[in-house]
Amino acid sequence: MTGTAEPSLSELPLRPELKGEEPYGAPQLDVPVLLNVNENPYPPSREVIEDLSRAVGEAVATMNRYPERDALALRADLADYLGHGLTADNIWAANGSNEVMTHVLGAFGGPGRSALTFVPSYSMYPEYARNTHTAWLTVPRRADFTLDLDLALRSIAELRPDVILIASPNNPTGTATDLDQLRSLCAAAPGVIVIDEAYAEFARPGTRSALDLLPSFGNLAVSRTMSKAFAFAGGRLGYLAAAPAFIDALRIVRLPYHLSVVSQAAARAALAHAPELLQQVDALRRERDALQDWLLATGLQVAASDANFVLFGRFADRHRVWQQLLDRGVLIRETGPTGWLRVSVGTPEETAAFRTALTDILPDNERLTDD
Amino acid sequence: MTGTAEPSLSELPLRPELKGEEPYGAPQLDVPVLLNVNENPYPPSREVIEDLSRAVGEAVATMNRYPERDALALRADLADYLGHGLTADNIWAANGSNEVMTHVLGAFGGPGRSALTFVPSYSMYPEYARNTHTAWLTVPRRADFTLDLDLALRSIAELRPDVILIASPNNPTGTATDLDQLRSLCAAAPGVIVIDEAYAEFARPGTRSALDLLPSFGNLAVSRTMSKAFAFAGGRLGYLAAAPAFIDALRIVRLPYHLSVVSQAAARAALAHAPELLQQVDALRRERDALQDWLLATGLQVAASDANFVLFGRFADRHRVWQQLLDRGVLIRETGPTGWLRVSVGTPEETAAFRTALTDILPDNERLTDD
Repeated sequence: MTGTAEPSLSELPLRPELKGEEPYGAPQLDVPVLLNVNENPYPPSREVIEDLSRAVGEAVATMNRYPERDALALRADLADYLGHGLTADNIWAANGSNEVMTHVLGAFGGPGRSALTFVPSYSMYPEYARNTHTAWLTVPRRADFTLDLDLALRSIAELRPDVILIASPNNPTGTATDLDQLRSLCAAAPGVIVIDEAYAEFARPGTRSALDLLPSFGNLAVSRTMSKAFAFAGGRLGYLAAAPAFIDALRIVRLPYHLSVVSQAAARAALAHAPELLQQVDALRRERDALQDWLLATGLQVAASDANFVLFGRFADRHRVWQQLLDRGVLIRETGPTGWLRVSVGTPEETAAFRTALTDILPDNERLTDD
Repeated sequence: MTGTAEPSLSELPLRPELKGEEPYGAPQLDVPVLLNVNENPYPPSREVIEDLSRAVGEAVATMNRYPERDALALRADLADYLGHGLTADNIWAANGSNEVMTHVLGAFGGPGRSALTFVPSYSMYPEYARNTHTAWLTVPRRADFTLDLDLALRSIAELRPDVILIASPNNPTGTATDLDQLRSLCAAAPGVIVIDEAYAEFARPGTRSALDLLPSFGNLAVSRTMSKAFAFAGGRLGYLAAAPAFIDALRIVRLPYHLSVVSQAAARAALAHAPELLQQVDALRRERDALQDWLLATGLQVAASDANFVLFGRFADRHRVWQQLLDRGVLIRETGPTGWLRVSVGTPEETAAFRTALTDILPDNERLTDD
């Protein structure tokens, strides 16, 4: 017995630009050491689990009712966490940064409009543009993945993008952009600009957040996520800070009740444990720095990282390196420019397993050198 | 101290078609009797709350990891609930029907394409079209809110919509559409067709589900929600059933990890209590039928309802009726064609409070009569 008619996908009237596309996503494999999607390796403590369960248990008592549509209590908690004099009116939150960015492009991008970023950068950005029918523009970074400000400003003046997206620290390179450069971009942006600080908490000491620029620029949004520093990837909670009018624009395009009762309750419970969770961030930063030092000592190239991952290389056949690591139980990510690979920072044990596996296969893999 | 620059919304480069728009949503007011958004009035039982809390507590133990991206276990549970020989491959799930419908229009609608429905119908449909830049077409229903099949087929032949949306039972009228009529629409649809059965569980005995049509039509999707029959509005879980290739199309446009760990776990826990929750549906159907009889006995017009709400009227000044009910602690919805109002079916106590309030104000409000 079959439950439905069985057309093939090519027989359905899919939009032409989607034909042949694959669902986005890194492989979800059952492997001992998962260092592929920049997750925080530390599961929640017993205290966090208990508080989350209790908060969700209280929230579900009214599960038959729709959620509080504006999620004001959660947004107030997120504002408190960010500081900088921000309040709930400055915060937007949604089911992961994916949805936050879709709201931004829905309000300020869309058909007939364009978005620009500096590549290599986050591989989801073109997906956001595709889903919102926003023209997608890219400008290269320097060879060391830092921003070429002159080129950036000339490109902005010429291309007049409606939205500028810049990840700082950048993914997959780990590169933080200097605040003075970001200020120049904000001043030059003809439309809105989003500085994506998904990995901000992992930046090296002295790195300033673009939150410092909010009092100066009404066209600026600074996006964050609870996935990384808060070890809350499973909870799907992305957010941004901006002027209240910017938030009002996002409220127009959001569909109502986008954040469930359990999402709101779980995120608030996790935020209440911020000090504990941010201690792990310190440990991960130390582990990241040690991993970079070790990779450099092996003679590999390393992109200086302000995030919880390291881009390293370069290999003549990076897929072979990726596969050989996977064969040894270590899953990393085949992403970034030619010859590079990205490894997330795990626990000391996970990072050690990665080092052992890489040591094992390095002699057997040809490296690329700069010409 | 202020945390951001303070532009007004008109100073930001919002898309032109969004200017002057308000965020969608019925008023969320703190009123004793809430009969405005077709929620199930019965909060979860102690057993449901405990199971949900336990399931979420187990799920959050791996909250630092991203969710299972395809939500296959949840989709299998939903398939089991629907029956009809369906499996996980036939099911799509997302954060409420809002997101499910956005995925459908993202895959099969969009710029240069059109979607059609039969009005009056669900007020969110034009929002889905707006957000996905799909042209929005409407064809009127008959005066009694049933489908005019001849007009529908002529309109489809003329307008060639890429997507047809039809709510059955319809919102806000409660009208179920006959299966033979739905079969004719499926056969006539030049693109895809979604039969929105958000209220299917409340239909009167003998009403057949469009799930019966799935073996015959590869262009058909039947959408459902856990918000109503499962008393899970706060959990935000919408889903649909269709051919596997239809699901593959939706997987292309979804952004990854759209369903959180807690959403998946909570929905599965609620589904495990389906028999208990569906007993409440029987009680609500009886309450609905009694409410309709009472409204008719007062001399009001009533749209025959297969849902958990009743459209009644007609009033010369429906806003005044709405306000006077609100003044008496009963919040209903000012929606539907001129002169009509919609009341959700509550508990016997809530429905009694509505009857008392309406009895109180009826003599004071002028009714409209058909010419």
